[in-house]
Amino acid sequence: MNNHSERPTSQPLGIAIIGLGGAVATTAVAGIQLIRQGVQATTGLPLAEFDHRDLVAYQDIYFRGWDLFPVDLYTAARKHGVLSREQLDAVADDLAGRRPWPAISNRNYCEGVVGERDSTGSHRELISGIQQQLDEFAREIDGRVVVINLASTEHAVDISPEVYQHTDAFERALDNNDPDISPAMLYAYACITHGVAYGNFTPSRAVDIPALRKLAAARNIPVAGKDGKTGQTYLKTVVAPALRARALHVDGWFSTNILGNRDGEALRQPGSLENKIGTKGDVLGSCLGYPVEDHLVKINYYKPRGDDKEAWDNIDVSGFLGQRMQIKINFLCKDSILAAPLAIEIARCLDLAGRSGQGGVVEALGVFFKAPMTADDRSPNHNFGQQQEELVRWLRETQVLANVAE
Amino acid sequence: MNNHSERPTSQPLGIAIIGLGGAVATTAVAGIQLIRQGVQATTGLPLAEFDHRDLVAYQDIYFRGWDLFPVDLYTAARKHGVLSREQLDAVADDLAGRRPWPAISNRNYCEGVVGERDSTGSHRELISGIQQQLDEFAREIDGRVVVINLASTEHAVDISPEVYQHTDAFERALDNNDPDISPAMLYAYACITHGVAYGNFTPSRAVDIPALRKLAAARNIPVAGKDGKTGQTYLKTVVAPALRARALHVDGWFSTNILGNRDGEALRQPGSLENKIGTKGDVLGSCLGYPVEDHLVKINYYKPRGDDKEAWDNIDVSGFLGQRMQIKINFLCKDSILAAPLAIEIARCLDLAGRSGQGGVVEALGVFFKAPMTADDRSPNHNFGQQQEELVRWLRETQVLANVAE
Amino acid sequence: MNNHSERPTSQPLGIAIIGLGGAVATTAVAGIQLIRQGVQATTGLPLAEFDHRDLVAYQDIYFRGWDLFPVDLYTAARKHGVLSREQLDAVADDLAGRRPWPAISNRNYCEGVVGERDSTGSHRELISGIQQQLDEFAREIDGRVVVINLASTEHAVDISPEVYQHTDAFERALDNNDPDISPAMLYAYACITHGVAYGNFTPSRAVDIPALRKLAAARNIPVAGKDGKTGQTYLKTVVAPALRARALHVDGWFSTNILGNRDGEALRQPGSLENKIGTKGDVLGSCLGYPVEDHLVKINYYKPRGDDKEAWDNIDVSGFLGQRMQIKINFLCKDSILAAPLAIEIARCLDLAGRSGQGGVVEALGVFFKAPMTADDRSPNHNFGQQQEELVRWLRETQVLANVAE
Amino acid sequence: MNNHSERPTSQPLGIAIIGLGGAVATTAVAGIQLIRQGVQATTGLPLAEFDHRDLVAYQDIYFRGWDLFPVDLYTAARKHGVLSREQLDAVADDLAGRRPWPAISNRNYCEGVVGERDSTGSHRELISGIQQQLDEFAREIDGRVVVINLASTEHAVDISPEVYQHTDAFERALDNNDPDISPAMLYAYACITHGVAYGNFTPSRAVDIPALRKLAAARNIPVAGKDGKTGQTYLKTVVAPALRARALHVDGWFSTNILGNRDGEALRQPGSLENKIGTKGDVLGSCLGYPVEDHLVKINYYKPRGDDKEAWDNIDVSGFLGQRMQIKINFLCKDSILAAPLAIEIARCLDLAGRSGQGGVVEALGVFFKAPMTADDRSPNHNFGQQQEELVRWLRETQVLANVAE
Repeated sequence: MNNHSERPTSQPLGIAIIGLGGAVATTAVAGIQLIRQGVQATTGLPLAEFDHRDLVAYQDIYFRGWDLFPVDLYTAARKHGVLSREQLDAVADDLAGRRPWPAISNRNYCEGVVGERDSTGSHRELISGIQQQLDEFAREIDGRVVVINLASTEHAVDISPEVYQHTDAFERALDNNDPDISPAMLYAYACITHGVAYGNFTPSRAVDIPALRKLAAARNIPVAGKDGKTGQTYLKTVVAPALRARALHVDGWFSTNILGNRDGEALRQPGSLENKIGTKGDVLGSCLGYPVEDHLVKINYYKPRGDDKEAWDNIDVSGFLGQRMQIKINFLCKDSILAAPLAIEIARCLDLAGRSGQGGVVEALGVFFKAPMTADDRSPNHNFGQQQEELVRWLRETQVLANVAE
Repeated sequence: MNNHSERPTSQPLGIAIIGLGGAVATTAVAGIQLIRQGVQATTGLPLAEFDHRDLVAYQDIYFRGWDLFPVDLYTAARKHGVLSREQLDAVADDLAGRRPWPAISNRNYCEGVVGERDSTGSHRELISGIQQQLDEFAREIDGRVVVINLASTEHAVDISPEVYQHTDAFERALDNNDPDISPAMLYAYACITHGVAYGNFTPSRAVDIPALRKLAAARNIPVAGKDGKTGQTYLKTVVAPALRARALHVDGWFSTNILGNRDGEALRQPGSLENKIGTKGDVLGSCLGYPVEDHLVKINYYKPRGDDKEAWDNIDVSGFLGQRMQIKINFLCKDSILAAPLAIEIARCLDLAGRSGQGGVVEALGVFFKAPMTADDRSPNHNFGQQQEELVRWLRETQVLANVAE
Repeated sequence: MNNHSERPTSQPLGIAIIGLGGAVATTAVAGIQLIRQGVQATTGLPLAEFDHRDLVAYQDIYFRGWDLFPVDLYTAARKHGVLSREQLDAVADDLAGRRPWPAISNRNYCEGVVGERDSTGSHRELISGIQQQLDEFAREIDGRVVVINLASTEHAVDISPEVYQHTDAFERALDNNDPDISPAMLYAYACITHGVAYGNFTPSRAVDIPALRKLAAARNIPVAGKDGKTGQTYLKTVVAPALRARALHVDGWFSTNILGNRDGEALRQPGSLENKIGTKGDVLGSCLGYPVEDHLVKINYYKPRGDDKEAWDNIDVSGFLGQRMQIKINFLCKDSILAAPLAIEIARCLDLAGRSGQGGVVEALGVFFKAPMTADDRSPNHNFGQQQEELVRWLRETQVLANVAE
Repeated sequence: MNNHSERPTSQPLGIAIIGLGGAVATTAVAGIQLIRQGVQATTGLPLAEFDHRDLVAYQDIYFRGWDLFPVDLYTAARKHGVLSREQLDAVADDLAGRRPWPAISNRNYCEGVVGERDSTGSHRELISGIQQQLDEFAREIDGRVVVINLASTEHAVDISPEVYQHTDAFERALDNNDPDISPAMLYAYACITHGVAYGNFTPSRAVDIPALRKLAAARNIPVAGKDGKTGQTYLKTVVAPALRARALHVDGWFSTNILGNRDGEALRQPGSLENKIGTKGDVLGSCLGYPVEDHLVKINYYKPRGDDKEAWDNIDVSGFLGQRMQIKINFLCKDSILAAPLAIEIARCLDLAGRSGQGGVVEALGVFFKAPMTADDRSPNHNFGQQQEELVRWLRETQVLANVAE
């Protein structure tokens, strides 16, 4: 199956989500449904006003996916508490019957949030199962499919061993059911070798390991990641470049977060938190041009908030004559409300990339990620304004050639 | 006197400041002196790291200027309380003996902060006096001169009458000592007709009235303005474009300020405040692409802070599915520490423009201003990131041709 | 009618509210109804856990009242947006049919929020009408009645003239339909002379003018006021005494508010705002023991928030060795959610006072008010902790004597 | 030596500080010196305005003490950066020559901040050395002496073993040089058995272990502790009781701190942090009357601030009808500026207690501590307002009887 071909935009796009029962995914599913019903505007969807002939219309998007918990989407969405009562009621019929496919469960990679038992079957069998599900979905909607990873963060992995560095070593490890291969990597491999674009919205190691990044390039399959840039890091990469433009020297930056959703619970596992803080920590030096020794990032699981995440940043800067000033930013946000539209736009852009013949890392999507992948593993640009301009430039230049021929 | 000629960069630059005894000006004077002494680094000077052959070196900058109060600069600086005790001590010898030229005083335009009595003499006599002072300064340093307006904000003026619209009407009004012509306008006219570049760091009406803007273009004298973008508006034009990029709709933006310096005191006069809020208010629509009905900007004179200005912003945004979030920004800044380096950079850039043969409004300096002037009075771009890139582009492209020939 | 007699607690209490269609009043009405239904706990009701035999039970409270707008309570509550959708649904049947009595309208006292036309009829006729309505209400519930003023703030009034100072002058003015007598005063007079306790939750001048305060004392009718202490002032009177206990000197206190409800709209009228800021301004000196020169209080009408009021306070303090520190408090509150339970408790306490034979100003209720009335017009104590202890002491000591006899 | 005898107030008081070279101690020493010079007012000293005949005058206080580092007090104070340049200059002569006695060093109890090597000598020898130093100090000033512990926090200790519970077991352990006895306990024992009052301003286990608390009672020596209530906990115990008074239910309270002084560095050691958070954590339940499950307290070492500590609190509350509100408090404080005057007042009060014949735990000093000791180990009252009233009551009632006789 290769769905990046000469189909007109009006064909539907299927987004298969890893973590379909989570808060972000159910918000995305409900949101597209509400837009389709004409009940909601496209507020919050970054590319809604960008007039592009070849981006799939929101109304033509459909969802399926995997989850560790076999809960139907209505029940899941109600539990997450993101949608208002009115919104939940409006999508009840659409969500009520739908259950995710069972996700690959492996408690070595995700202690905090696991299914009843680990998945059985060899790596190759699990991959083949994923590919059959993708085919089924494509047939069902008679359209193209992309995969977005929205699952809970897996443990940090040291990627220096061979198995993560070279495609052939990785494939041998697959054959040997090597326990070093995580669920997230299995999904990514299944997609790339099946012609399906893959976006990693989580901090987990997946398509960003060299073995898979190279495979995606070799097969010319669009991939992007990782870790959606939603709240605190988004504002950090907005503010830091402006401090640099004014030569205000950052002496320290203290970032703390409180959040109470499933994502936060998973982050209580030290390994997962390490992954998360890793992707949050690198951005500052990139935006400023020098390292900030006292850059602290704290993430706290704090139940009362549920999905209503809150970030508090304190920035200590020195200005003219070495005199010191402070900036404090308090962002009362809603995690899933910020994340869901980004996941949707990433899927639309990956689809566009595939249909216009682009594969490998789609670097122009860097604005959507905390730790943007680059084709050759060089350091990414984290400057939000410049990332945004790069995205706009890419969208202007990218078109589906088949359409031109029409 | 036309000092925008083929002199090499190593020649000194004189900055003549209107409001030389104020907090911003004395900070600039002391700051350059501390840099010259090697006591302070160039932190906070936006172009310090920009390697440009033709921008005058900070060490080659000298100051003179006018003030309503005949206080020597050391006494003034000590009173403002911006410099640390150590910094003040280090520049004491340099500042102690220096007194400003008497500024033009006219209590019709500036009630809050006025000299003992209004200036006497006809408009033409006052202009001629200014020009003689500029000549004297240029001879003294054997270099070029630019003028920067850092005086207290004058009253708002309705600029629809002829006298403000057309150069010839303005000049007739000058001849008639028309009371509609403010001190700020007299300085601007004196500069333009004397070949001296002029930057307006205040919200006062000056070179931005069409009569003078056109004159500057006709005489090819570089001018720029107005109202330095230092604290709250700076961050506003940084954050708002990023909200737009994420399609987060701004439902309301409440900005309040507390400050206790002379600037704040002048703003207690309703007319001056109106000027100030005018220049602060327009930026949001420009950055967002739509008007924000509930954009409130409040400025409060609050003595305990002195020059330590504080801004608190509350931003109400709607995201995906119309759900609401809030961002609060608390900026504990130092007004003069932010403003002084901008005033210095504006002067350096105006000097560069003049020496490279550019006159009229130097639009590339928009990043430095709350209400950037445009050559043809069209709406300016307030997006900070884009303004910064425009400045960088301009600096890269601008050079003093004479140097090439050397 | 004198309803402060020997009835057992189980008899119902009627609360007649001036401003029944407002956000606070409809929240109170709905809240008691939800408690009666067993749907809501008594969270937020300050005396819910105070075990007092003679305070009327929440389940035994009923509401009627006046409003300028003839809108039914369900429609009004829905418009105010204070109740959640679920809460609104649960009380829909109870609120839907109920309309307020027409309130006295006089655009000389309340420009911002007025009815279609001013009320007609002499002062004495209006008073008599009020008293008939109170009688009707008491008969309807077969219980006692108290009146609480929750109407929009009236204009500030200079109370030095005779008419406000002496009861007989006031009564002569009534006879002459003197325009100096405001609607709030007519209600207060109607209550006192009809044996009905009266609580003033607004900043308007009413029972606090000496003429009426003395009348209440003479007739032994319990009265209390004024201006409910809900958000910013509440926290101010909590924090300021603690600063004093630590000898931290307050150099300045900047308080700003943003709110978007009908209350805020009324405050856009300069006269009303003056009243409001008056009652907010006096507290600091009382709590600290010295005047704070730079105590600024700002109230801003800011639509996006609706009833979700927000306060931001910045406090500048000096500590040991004169060194300076700052405290910033950001209160994201809901005006009516804070106010409604206080209004209910004031009514219960006034009822208790009346039944235990206490009349005149009930000083023990000071903790509920921004500008607590005192019997002899001496300065009140604003220290929140001490006020709370005084209330507790009063409740412990106050009982309905008739019950003892039973 | 028993210095709690019939000496008149005008006799000097010596405060012997454990941790004399620290930021709090050097601030106290310099502060008293500046007051003695008449250069500084008594701002920030809680009892400065409390007119009490028998509290020692600030001018009559003198300091000595111990420290792990043999640095003179001027050098230490300059390094801490708490005093302004002017203040430091004014006390330079007084502080320059003074060096602390070497403190007891034991890296089992304080990893973060230790001297070159651990102290040698038996427990009994160390105790005897302390007592000789106290005698020497008393002779030197010809006055009384009290000891205040301001040293870095020691490791948390499980106090259930016998040795901590019973005085005789503790004394046997002393004889055996038991390693379970910490430096802080040695100082406390040395004081109690030498007739010297002892106040514990740190979270370390010292006089609060039952073995020593009982000894202090038996010997009738005043003791108090522990952990000075300066910043975040101070405000917490101010605000929480007021929330209770309004029946606002606390759903969660998130407290984070950033600080960069030696105290913060010591807290990087997990054991010490545990001690600190222990004393911070218990207060909320006491003030509210119910436990708060989501009460998080975070302390972060963040260098850019030095002694300028900052606290950010977010409080989630539910009000009437279960509706939710938030309070955020941002306290930009100076740790030593808040702590030093409390340490001084504790010493003055302990001295007063001793001279008026009171021994054992002085409960009336609870307002000064995060974890107030009680005579019988029952739970203390943390309500700040009530604690303050208890202190005032105690001061009013306590006097030195000998004076009466004079």
